[in-house]
Amino acid sequence: MEKSRIDRQFDFIREIDKEKLITRQTYLSNAVRKENDAEHAWHMAIMAVLLSEYANDDIDVLKTIIMLLIHDIVEIDAGDTYAYDDKGLKTQHEREQKAANRIFGLLPDDQCEKLKSLWEEFEFGKSKEAKFAHTLDNIQPTMLNSATDGRAWAEHEVKLSQILKRNENTAGGSQILWNYSKDNFILPNLKKGRIKDE
Amino acid sequence: MEKSRIDRQFDFIREIDKEKLITRQTYLSNAVRKENDAEHAWHMAIMAVLLSEYANDDIDVLKTIIMLLIHDIVEIDAGDTYAYDDKGLKTQHEREQKAANRIFGLLPDDQCEKLKSLWEEFEFGKSKEAKFAHTLDNIQPTMLNSATDGRAWAEHEVKLSQILKRNENTAGGSQILWNYSKDNFILPNLKKGRIKDE
Repeated sequence: MEKSRIDRQFDFIREIDKEKLITRQTYLSNAVRKENDAEHAWHMAIMAVLLSEYANDDIDVLKTIIMLLIHDIVEIDAGDTYAYDDKGLKTQHEREQKAANRIFGLLPDDQCEKLKSLWEEFEFGKSKEAKFAHTLDNIQPTMLNSATDGRAWAEHEVKLSQILKRNENTAGGSQILWNYSKDNFILPNLKKGRIKDE
Repeated sequence: MEKSRIDRQFDFIREIDKEKLITRQTYLSNAVRKENDAEHAWHMAIMAVLLSEYANDDIDVLKTIIMLLIHDIVEIDAGDTYAYDDKGLKTQHEREQKAANRIFGLLPDDQCEKLKSLWEEFEFGKSKEAKFAHTLDNIQPTMLNSATDGRAWAEHEVKLSQILKRNENTAGGSQILWNYSKDNFILPNLKKGRIKDE
């Protein structure tokens, strides 16, 4: 017997509970433990509400929020790939596409289509909402890293050049937020030696 | 010197990081640990996207999502009050109002006003969006409790009458979702003795 629409929706809703167990490399602002993907997405959804006024282009806030809420769901299968893990980054796309098919595939077809295409739009990174979502995805960890005296940067011996490469498109969503992140979160930690210069 | 608008926004964004440390009484679906407020809010925001079609009235989804994202921020100061803690429930309102003033007060005035009134609208529970948000706030833990074989219910020796009292307004946001929760999450656990009958 085919599952009902509402059963499929709850299958998906139960499945994504696992995102709360995907640990990122960023420490919470009090440094007691690392952040997980669900917390990260929640934080950024609120940031989208408050900071959309700084987007380079007028954005659809609801669309941006949904994108941010779901953008890491694929990591339930594919795991979190650290921004500076070159090896992991090579296989990341294939692992995540497979995960998207399985996890969004739990939903009724129309909602599967909707969420999967929003996730693909985020991955592709070209729409104004995707650009702004990427800006937030990049500056949120710099804010937390800075709040913990650059702990995650220091532990991974991250270099300024790596951060700048990682952030080469951050200004594409918001020039103002990228400048803010650079001036308030990144450069002070370079000065203190928590980020390596070379 | 008065703080700039963007500094105030980031003060708030950094402050709410603490919500990730407020533990609820509900276990995650694999029962390894309890859920925190930020994870709970993230989960419900996605539920709002997927389940708004079952709302009794047409709702503004963006408004509902923002409400859900911020509704527990006051617990950073006021703590989580368990649904069946009668003593805590008595002082809850005053503690939370004070917390709302302090935490939302970190924001620029216009955004403080906007978020505080959304929080108050949720607390008041009368608008169609607030009603639907409460429906989700009540059914999400029943779903997780059921996924963990009723563990939180059994640990707290919760009675069916307490659950029904707690849920007396749940159908007000969505009759369909309340029925689903009752039939799929609550009654099977009563049958298994994980919820006490009397």
